[in-house]
Amino acid sequence: MRDLSNDHNWLSINTATVRQQADLIGIVEACARRGIRAVSPWRDQVAHVGLERAVAAVRDAGLKLSGYCRGGMLTSDAAHRQEMLDENRRAIDEAAALGSPCLVMVVGGLPQYSRPGSDPSKDIRAAQAQVTEALAEVLPHAQNAGMPLAIEPLHPMYAADRACVNTVRQALDICDRLDPQRTGVVGVAIDTYHVWWDSDVWSQIARIGKKRLLAFHVCDWLVPTKDMLLDRGMMGDGVIDIPAYRRAVEAQGFDGFVEVELLSSDWWSRPLDEVLDTVIARYRTVV
Amino acid sequence: MRDLSNDHNWLSINTATVRQQADLIGIVEACARRGIRAVSPWRDQVAHVGLERAVAAVRDAGLKLSGYCRGGMLTSDAAHRQEMLDENRRAIDEAAALGSPCLVMVVGGLPQYSRPGSDPSKDIRAAQAQVTEALAEVLPHAQNAGMPLAIEPLHPMYAADRACVNTVRQALDICDRLDPQRTGVVGVAIDTYHVWWDSDVWSQIARIGKKRLLAFHVCDWLVPTKDMLLDRGMMGDGVIDIPAYRRAVEAQGFDGFVEVELLSSDWWSRPLDEVLDTVIARYRTVV
Repeated sequence: MRDLSNDHNWLSINTATVRQQADLIGIVEACARRGIRAVSPWRDQVAHVGLERAVAAVRDAGLKLSGYCRGGMLTSDAAHRQEMLDENRRAIDEAAALGSPCLVMVVGGLPQYSRPGSDPSKDIRAAQAQVTEALAEVLPHAQNAGMPLAIEPLHPMYAADRACVNTVRQALDICDRLDPQRTGVVGVAIDTYHVWWDSDVWSQIARIGKKRLLAFHVCDWLVPTKDMLLDRGMMGDGVIDIPAYRRAVEAQGFDGFVEVELLSSDWWSRPLDEVLDTVIARYRTVV
Repeated sequence: MRDLSNDHNWLSINTATVRQQADLIGIVEACARRGIRAVSPWRDQVAHVGLERAVAAVRDAGLKLSGYCRGGMLTSDAAHRQEMLDENRRAIDEAAALGSPCLVMVVGGLPQYSRPGSDPSKDIRAAQAQVTEALAEVLPHAQNAGMPLAIEPLHPMYAADRACVNTVRQALDICDRLDPQRTGVVGVAIDTYHVWWDSDVWSQIARIGKKRLLAFHVCDWLVPTKDMLLDRGMMGDGVIDIPAYRRAVEAQGFDGFVEVELLSSDWWSRPLDEVLDTVIARYRTVV
């Protein structure tokens, strides 16, 4: 396992972590000032400043990307299917323009939440099947763009409204089906917050292989968790043994950026400098 | 699949559903007045009125039990281990006194939450291993008492503080290990709320077999879920296709009570009669 304690060379900031404190340009500048070498922007933050400005800002600051958030919301009724495909192809193109190594896919839950206006359904199995079908349909565009799709299993508490792929096992089963040669055109993003509870995660991480391990995100699980969406914990403040997961992914050959993605009303209410300085300190000590 | 639409002969009320409205005696009487044939009491509700009064009330009302809630919290540090074992043996004895068909086991999360005062740990794998060990240790007492232990996998959002067994697969793996002959001395309780998200649940329910399927609980998942503990939905108000899960368990030979267990600030704020009447109506139409 890599020693991260001496510097923060392999730290990446998911820009949602400080989305309330600055726009993308401000975040990029603040990261560059601290010698942070990578970011992972969200689409709405890029759209807010414009894709060209975002590309220029990242390039001028000498930053890399560890990912781009996000494609997905692949479940829909028939009337919303074309919108879903078009949007995912645009997300792939944006990721390529920004030089991202992958597009993170939050696959969607039941159609009425994934694509509002879709006919309501309670059929989670149908939604899960639709994810595989939709991924298959956008995969050629991703291949042409040289943009790997990183399926991110989300915590099961998001199954209804955000992602009906909730375990590494399930994500890898989809990868096996769509990319049996394991070229890595489709792979997974592992986030400690989403997978830490899973007794099965160890055998599943061992199954990934380096080419399919497209991203590694960290944050912590707080007890109690006061809000299902906006109460993620800073690394070290919760119950996740983060180094155990990093050890497991690095044993698969992962040698990329450790991306900190923290959706938290608490941390959003603090100054940008304080958040980034805390992230760096925790990265060096508890990740 | 059984037709439940004509009566409520196979309905059981988990007494936590109306714990704010009445004590156990009041709940038992209200159920009996409506021809509800079974309840599943909680230990603290039994303790509040006294075990002997509880036994008499259930007997005099002609009610059966569909379960007894709960044993468990099996994870602890060494200093709290004896307390944990003693308490589980007492819970087994109470379940037998009440004539319960099983003792529901909420297995505990990390030791510091399961047994307050225990040394804090982030090792969820160690907690999971401890669950199997502790179950093995109380199993002889359960066998002597003729009291099957029903492991209830809880939703993964409770992994840290309530139960580190979060899937049917994981529960059955423990059963396989402790009871390879599948006598049913240890089995599972399936609750739609906890398992509905799991793409793996269908193959795992198919693996249970009648003897290990000790209880079937229903309620619904609301979107949004405003509170992780106390915002469960009345059947029909959420996104779970409850009949699909009932069909799956009944295909395994399950022919027992369908237990409604609803922890909800909303429903706790309504009159006892309204809650029970709504439960009966929903049981007949959407379960």
